[in-house]
Amino acid sequence: MTQNGTLYIISAPSGAGKSSLIQAYLKYHPLYEAQVSISHTTRNKREAEQEGVHYYFIDKPTFLEMIEKDDFLEHAEVFGNYYGTSKNAILNTLASGVDVFLDIDWQGARQIRNKMPSAKSIFILPPSNQELLRRLKGRGQDSDETIDFRMKQAKKEIEHFDEYDYVIINDDFERALSDLKAILRSEKLKTEYQLQNNKSLFTKLLSTEI
Amino acid sequence: MTQNGTLYIISAPSGAGKSSLIQAYLKYHPLYEAQVSISHTTRNKREAEQEGVHYYFIDKPTFLEMIEKDDFLEHAEVFGNYYGTSKNAILNTLASGVDVFLDIDWQGARQIRNKMPSAKSIFILPPSNQELLRRLKGRGQDSDETIDFRMKQAKKEIEHFDEYDYVIINDDFERALSDLKAILRSEKLKTEYQLQNNKSLFTKLLSTEI
Repeated sequence: MTQNGTLYIISAPSGAGKSSLIQAYLKYHPLYEAQVSISHTTRNKREAEQEGVHYYFIDKPTFLEMIEKDDFLEHAEVFGNYYGTSKNAILNTLASGVDVFLDIDWQGARQIRNKMPSAKSIFILPPSNQELLRRLKGRGQDSDETIDFRMKQAKKEIEHFDEYDYVIINDDFERALSDLKAILRSEKLKTEYQLQNNKSLFTKLLSTEI
Repeated sequence: MTQNGTLYIISAPSGAGKSSLIQAYLKYHPLYEAQVSISHTTRNKREAEQEGVHYYFIDKPTFLEMIEKDDFLEHAEVFGNYYGTSKNAILNTLASGVDVFLDIDWQGARQIRNKMPSAKSIFILPPSNQELLRRLKGRGQDSDETIDFRMKQAKKEIEHFDEYDYVIINDDFERALSDLKAILRSEKLKTEYQLQNNKSLFTKLLSTEI
């Protein structure tokens, strides 16, 4: 029986709790194996970062070559650095039966949807603007200007929540985590998924043999 | 905030465990209120049955009048008796924010899908033909002929599982129940549902006010 993984696009404004939710889900030992997609980037590796864990660090010519070969599901340039998601890396993981989380903004999400229509997308929202601001301030390491900028960026991201398949409102963390678990579990129960992954069972059930 | 319920069409061959799953779900105190749809019928009330609990018992002229008024989402004649699902009864329940389970065969399911495209449908399968036969025999109250007839009927029902949105394979009861819970929870997280039921939250999140 070949089980195929599902690609989950996850977007959220900064402060919505996206990374914490994904990490908590991965720790929970789901029924179905899952992992976070690892991007390729041309930016310099920071001290705490590890190759193949946080990113695949490559140089700009290599990145441009991969673009030429259409090896990216999506890519973007941010502050002069390139970031991209390798199609082959994702397809191989999915083919091995592992679900993949792709933590990406609404623009990247649009590119993915076009190239992989079977991907499911989830948007995580904060419960209110006050709470979003509190969470952005709560980090206590940024200037008012930075927080104000982040708040504006967050608003721009939030504007696109209705392009996603699912919306989780992260008011209570445990409840939001249960929501995420329910979505991933229910996706495995959709008929098109079951048909693809339980062919032999269905053939037997439809046969006249006991 | 107006919460609208969802109509769930649930079908399964006899012996798949459909009724037990629905009853177990209703006992579990779901996040969202739910109840089983109550049909109208012209057949005689049995001793253990209660009006408005098991069925609404009405006479044939009343039933035919309701057909004329197009008040049934679906109806069927079985062994000379009529059975039907009142559209108004269901719509009122859904409007009060309560989910409704409609326990019905594949033919009724088709009628419902046409009349209420927003309904979600779930098919419950036994894990194997051997297990299905074992469960049908397990009741210990029917002749071989009856069991053989039921097995054939079950097969005819199973043939239509791929017309449903979700498929639950009831191998382990607790797991199947968790599957059902996950489906109902995830349906509330779909963007079209959230948009309909959390309008004021989204308006506030998209406004410039903190």
